[in-house]
This record gives sequence, C-alpha cells and structure tokens, in this order.
Amino acid sequence: MARLRRKADFPVHEVRRYLEPGPIVLVSSRWRDRTNIMTLGWHMVMEFSPSLVGCMISGGNHSFRLIRDSGECVINLPTTALTDTVVGIGNTSGAAIDKFETFGLTAEAAQEVGAPLIRECHANFECRLHDDTLVDRYNVFIFEVVKAHVAPTPKHPKTLHYTGGGVFVTAGGVVDRKALFRPGML
Amino acid sequence: MARLRRKADFPVHEVRRYLEPGPIVLVSSRWRDRTNIMTLGWHMVMEFSPSLVGCMISGGNHSFRLIRDSGECVINLPTTALTDTVVGIGNTSGAAIDKFETFGLTAEAAQEVGAPLIRECHANFECRLHDDTLVDRYNVFIFEVVKAHVAPTPKHPKTLHYTGGGVFVTAGGVVDRKALFRPGML
Repeated sequence: MARLRRKADFPVHEVRRYLEPGPIVLVSSRWRDRTNIMTLGWHMVMEFSPSLVGCMISGGNHSFRLIRDSGECVINLPTTALTDTVVGIGNTSGAAIDKFETFGLTAEAAQEVGAPLIRECHANFECRLHDDTLVDRYNVFIFEVVKAHVAPTPKHPKTLHYTGGGVFVTAGGVVDRKALFRPGML
Repeated sequence: MARLRRKADFPVHEVRRYLEPGPIVLVSSRWRDRTNIMTLGWHMVMEFSPSLVGCMISGGNHSFRLIRDSGECVINLPTTALTDTVVGIGNTSGAAIDKFETFGLTAEAAQEVGAPLIRECHANFECRLHDDTLVDRYNVFIFEVVKAHVAPTPKHPKTLHYTGGGVFVTAGGVVDRKALFRPGML
C-alpha cells in the first residue's frame, strides 16, 4: 500500500475538483455503535455553495439505514492502490462483517459528523443530509459537504472509474485547456 | 478528427457502461426551429430500468429552456478527439451562435426524440424528461434514456473527465477485476 500522506483542509465549494470526474468512492457511515463502508459510483456534483452532492444509495445496502437514520456520511476517495479493497467492499455486506477490520482500513474521527473518515483514502468529504426529497422514490440522497480533507499530492490522483461488469478505467493523462476558457468559466 | 465509426443499437439499461465513469458529455437539444449543444459534467446514473440519468443543467444556459420546453435531449459522448470542440462549446452561448455550424458538427435525426444526435461523438443517448421534481429547486432534470447508439470500437473510448479550472483528466488504463465479483454483482 502507498505511503499515507497527511491531508490538508480543502475548500468545500471546490470538491467538484475530485468528484466531477466520476470516480468510484467509498461511503462510510455510523449509526449508534455500527459503522459501515460501501462502494458507490452513482453520484454527481449539484452545486458549489452550498457544496451539494447527490448520491444514489440502493435500499438493499446495509449502509442505507445507517445513512438514513444518522443523516450523515463521509465520501472517501480511493485510488488504484486500493483497487482490490474497493472491489471487496462492494462485494460484501456490512450486515455480516466489520469492513474496517476485514479490509484493514483505519477509521479516523471526523470533525463535523459522526461517521468515520477512511485514513487510507486520498480525500475525505464529510457530508450531512441536505434534502431527502428523492430518497423514497429514487434512493437519492442530496448531501452537503461540510468539511473536506485532501492529500496535497499527487495533484491528480489515479482514481478508479467503474464501467460495470467488474471492469474499471483509471484516471489517465492530464489535459490542460485553461488558455481556451473565458475567465468567468474557470 | 478520427474516422467516424458506424454505431450500433445498444441496450438502454446498460448505459452506465459509458456514463458511470463520469465523462464530460455534450447535450444536444431542439425546441421548434432552434437547436443547441452544451457541455455537461454534472450527471449521474440513477436506475438501470427504466434507464434514468440525472443532469444538473444550470438555468443560465441557453439549452435550459430548449430542454425544459421540449422535455427532450440527447446525451452525446465525446472523446479526446473532440477536446477543443468540447471546450469551445462550453465557452460560447447558443444565444449568439449556431454551435453545429460553428464547430463543424453533424446533426443527425434521432429515432425517438426531436433533438439531434451529434454524429462525431462515440455514443448518443436519446432522452425524454422522466421527472421534473428537482428542476425548480436544483436545475436537476431526471431523464429516461429511450434509445442508445454506440460505436462498437474502441471498447473503452478515451473520454474526458473535467476537474474544473480548465483541466481534464482522460480515461486511462483498463483494470479488470471480474474474477473478484460475486455473480449477482456483475
């Protein structure tokens, strides 16, 4: 496993930097004395400020109730160093195992929410439920990111992007087109 | 520009294959005699069947009214062959220019909706508005993909993933972990 980098505070209104590219994330949660982690690919940035992220969390997940009952979670950003862990978490249930223990992950206390951060991830976004309008109909939770922690390097972490069927594509090269943007669009 | 490949019908319940990894997409629309194209990064898969995709389309976009009034659009998937076109479309307004003409793109008739397909893209997903519950509050449209067209090769198109600030990361290597998945999870 890669050396763990110390994380720095990161502006919550800029989390699109990490979430808009569509990485697989690990969502950690806690309700009373139970914690859990799930793998999630169905999410989207919805607003800069407040910093809103929509997440489709299927009702069949053990995490669904922990998140609904606590109204909180942490969105953690893994990289390819955690590929097999990401797959393992997505193919097991927190109803049967303690995922932090099984996968050798370190739970760290968050600052604004009760759910734990996953230390081994590149970034951690502490989230509070902002709007549950779509939970009953679509299992979509609209979260506000209330605190963000990001490792300063690498600048472009090698994230995993799921395509279904057990296959991921990974973040590749960086393409900078800043010069072609109107200032107001940056 | 890359040679244009003939597209084949693709099952609508499998569009997560292309949209879940979080690519920048081009959304084309038509209302009466006006067409337009916008660049979009804030979208997520919400359901397999019906095939639902949520899209945050800011009210400031010229496309917003065309899509709201027609209740339709096409989500087109560009690759790095269209990088400068993607940036150009995102930095201009359809109120001032005809984007198909300005950017040399080919509008093709869709089968199920009035909005045009963009021929130069790797895939085209014809969408009909499924639920407008979140349009007033968040500018989020929930679309149903009613018809999908995908070029059979390359199997893993080199898509663009936006990080803000004029910088993209591109789809890189392929990581296959099929063997680690429970059959029901594939």
